[in-house]
Amino acid sequence: MPRLSNRATHMPASPIRKLVPFAEGAKARGIHVYHLNIGQPDIPTPKEMMDAYRNTTLTVLPYSHSAGSWEYREHLAQYYRSHGIEVDKEHVLVTTGGSEAIIFTFMTIMDPGDEVIIPEPFYTNYNGFAVEAGVKVVPVTCNRADGFKLPPDAEIEARITERTKAILICNPNNPTGYVYTKEELERLQRLAEKHDLFLLADEVYREFVYDGAQHHSILSLPGIGERAVVMDSISKRFSACGARIGCVVTRNPAILEAALKFGQARLSPPTLDMIAADAALVNTPPKYLQEVVNEYRARRDVVFEALEKIPGVEGLKPRGAFYTIVKLPVDDAEKFATWLLSDFDYNGETVMLAPANGFYATPGKGVDEVRIAFVLNLESMKRAMEILRVALEKYPGRK
Amino acid sequence: MPRLSNRATHMPASPIRKLVPFAEGAKARGIHVYHLNIGQPDIPTPKEMMDAYRNTTLTVLPYSHSAGSWEYREHLAQYYRSHGIEVDKEHVLVTTGGSEAIIFTFMTIMDPGDEVIIPEPFYTNYNGFAVEAGVKVVPVTCNRADGFKLPPDAEIEARITERTKAILICNPNNPTGYVYTKEELERLQRLAEKHDLFLLADEVYREFVYDGAQHHSILSLPGIGERAVVMDSISKRFSACGARIGCVVTRNPAILEAALKFGQARLSPPTLDMIAADAALVNTPPKYLQEVVNEYRARRDVVFEALEKIPGVEGLKPRGAFYTIVKLPVDDAEKFATWLLSDFDYNGETVMLAPANGFYATPGKGVDEVRIAFVLNLESMKRAMEILRVALEKYPGRK
Repeated sequence: MPRLSNRATHMPASPIRKLVPFAEGAKARGIHVYHLNIGQPDIPTPKEMMDAYRNTTLTVLPYSHSAGSWEYREHLAQYYRSHGIEVDKEHVLVTTGGSEAIIFTFMTIMDPGDEVIIPEPFYTNYNGFAVEAGVKVVPVTCNRADGFKLPPDAEIEARITERTKAILICNPNNPTGYVYTKEELERLQRLAEKHDLFLLADEVYREFVYDGAQHHSILSLPGIGERAVVMDSISKRFSACGARIGCVVTRNPAILEAALKFGQARLSPPTLDMIAADAALVNTPPKYLQEVVNEYRARRDVVFEALEKIPGVEGLKPRGAFYTIVKLPVDDAEKFATWLLSDFDYNGETVMLAPANGFYATPGKGVDEVRIAFVLNLESMKRAMEILRVALEKYPGRK
Repeated sequence: MPRLSNRATHMPASPIRKLVPFAEGAKARGIHVYHLNIGQPDIPTPKEMMDAYRNTTLTVLPYSHSAGSWEYREHLAQYYRSHGIEVDKEHVLVTTGGSEAIIFTFMTIMDPGDEVIIPEPFYTNYNGFAVEAGVKVVPVTCNRADGFKLPPDAEIEARITERTKAILICNPNNPTGYVYTKEELERLQRLAEKHDLFLLADEVYREFVYDGAQHHSILSLPGIGERAVVMDSISKRFSACGARIGCVVTRNPAILEAALKFGQARLSPPTLDMIAADAALVNTPPKYLQEVVNEYRARRDVVFEALEKIPGVEGLKPRGAFYTIVKLPVDDAEKFATWLLSDFDYNGETVMLAPANGFYATPGKGVDEVRIAFVLNLESMKRAMEILRVALEKYPGRK
C-alpha cells in the first residue's frame, strides 16, 4: 500500500478534539462529561437566526456566490463600519467558517516554507492550517507573569527571517483571553511596515471584552491600508458554530482576488447558513450580545473564584474571549485530561479539558497547562470547577 | 506591500465561474442569461430535506462531530451497501461538500511535487485543489472520437513516475458524461496494484446513468481493499448544492485517521445541513431520483437534437452525468463565451457556457470546446440551444 503524505503524518490531531474517544468512553459508562475543552457555547442562537432556517421558502437549495451574496457582504460591511472599521462590501469575502478564512489567507499570502510569527499560546488549529499550507509557525512566547501581553519588539524582530511573510494575532486572544492594546497594535503595524510583512488578526471574539477593556481592530489602524487582513466568524458572536460562516476582510484587492479563486474551487459557502447568518446580523436585537457578554463575564468570575481556592493552580483572569490558560499542579496535563475521562469520576461526573501543549509551537511549553472554556452555564461551571478540585486531589500524577 | 504566494498566482480562476462578472453585466443590461455553465440544477430539492430545516427544534446551532454524526454515517453506509459497496459507518467521513472530500484526499495521500494521473477533460476544480495541495495533475487525454473511453494501459503507464501517487477518475464523468465500464475499472485496479498507487474516484453522479448504462464503483472491485478512495456529495443527487455536504469513503483506516485530523482543524461540516442531508437520504422516496434521472435524460435528448442541427458543432451524446463537452466552430471558445455575455443577445436573452480549456491540463486542448450542463428545464434548454445556434451564426470569430 502506498504511504500517506508527510503532511498527513505531521498534521496534528486537535488537542481540543483528540480526547473525544475517551469522552465517548466515559459517556458509554454512564458518566456525565462537562465539556470545557471546546469553544462550543450553550448560549441560545438568536431566534432570528433559527427562524431564517424555519421560514425558508427555498424549493431548490442552490450554490451561493463563491464570495458570498452581495446582500450579506453589504450587511457585514455595515457591521464593520459600526465598529469603526471602514470597509465596503467589496472588501469582504464570505467563507465556510473562520477556519476557511484562515486557510484561504495562509494559502494566498504564503508558499510552503514561508513563515508566520504568532504569539504563543495560540489557537491550536493555526498549527493544522500551517501544516496544510506547508507554512512554518514561528512562535514568540507570551507569559502569564507578564499578563500575556505582547513581547518587546526585539523579541519579535529576532524571529523575522527572509521567509517571514506575516504576523498573526488572535484578538481578543484564544486561549489566553488577552485583549491587545492600541499601542501594541501600533507596534505591530510599525514592525509590519518596517519589515514589509502582512498583519493578520483573528477577531472572532471582537465583542467579548470585560471590565472596560476595549477591542481595537487592526483594520482601524490609520495607514494600515492593504497590509491588514482580518479573519472573522459568526460562530461565537451568535453562538452558531454549526453554521460554518466566516469571512475574510481586507482592503487588499490582490488578496481578495486570489482568495476568491480558492473560493471558486470549493464553489460556495453553505447557502442557507449564509442566509441565516445574514438574518442574525440584521435582525438580532443589540441586547442579545450585551446579555451574552454579561453571561460570559459572570462565568469567568465563577471560574476564577473557584480556581483561586484550588492549591497549586495558577491562572490569570482574562479581559476578553471566553477561555483561560491555567497551570495545574500535575506531571502532564494531557495525561491528567485523559485520566479525567478514563479513570475518574466524582459522583458520576467528570470534566473534559484541552491540554495546552497543542497551543504552543515551542516544544515543552504548556505541558502542565490546560485551556478552560467558559461555555457552560453558571451552575455547570461551578460544578465543573468542584470536580476539577476533587480530581486534582485524587490524581496520582499530582505534583 | 509583500507579494502574494506563487500558489495564489498559479491558482486558476474557475472556468465555470470566472465569466460571472460578464454575466452580471449582461443581467444589469436587462438580458436574461441561461446558465449552462454550472452544474446548478433547477430540480427541486426533496421536500423531505427542506422540511428538515423548516422543522428544526435546535435552539443552539452547535458544531457537529468533525467526521460527521454517527447517525448520518450509518445511513450513508446503508446507502452504499444498497449500491453494492460493502462499507461500514467507520469507513465514511463527512465533509463540507465533495470539494472538501477531494482536498482532504489530496492532502492526505500527496505531498507537494507528488503527481496524480487524471483522464482529461476532467472536472476543472481538480486543478484548483491540486494547486492548493502543491500536487501536479498529469493528464492522459481521452478523445471524443474514441467515445471518451479510457486510453490504453500503455498510455497511462507512460505517465507514471517516481512521484505518481494515484489515479483519479470521475465516474460518471464530469464533463464528458462518460460511464466507465467494469473492465476499465479492473484495468485501473491492475495498474494501481502493479505500480502501488491509490485509486480515487469522484462518484457524485453515481445514479445519473442513461440508456441502460450501469455505474460501477471502484469500492465494488474485488480485492481493491484499502487502495480505493471514493469522494462523494449530495449536491447533485438531491439537488442540494448549497448544503455543502459530501464525504470520503474508504476502507483505508490510515487515510480516514489522517483525513479526520484535517477535519478537526476545520472543526465540523455544517450541522443543520448534515441533518437535512440525513433526512434527504432516509426519507426521500425512491421515485424522486427515478424522475430526476428521467428528466435529465430528456434534457440531454433535447440538447443533442438541437446540437445535431447546428453546422460545425461536434458532440457525443453521453450516457451519464448531465454535462457534455462540445466542439464549436469558433476561433476560441472562451472569447465566444465572453462575447455571448458582453456583446450578444437574441431577443433579450443569451447563454452562459463554460469554456473547456480549463477542463484540460494539456496546454492548447479544449480551446474550441465548451462544457454544457443540462441543468435547466426542457423549454429553457430548447430555448438556450436556439440562442446558441443564432449566436454561432453571428459570432465574428466563427470558423
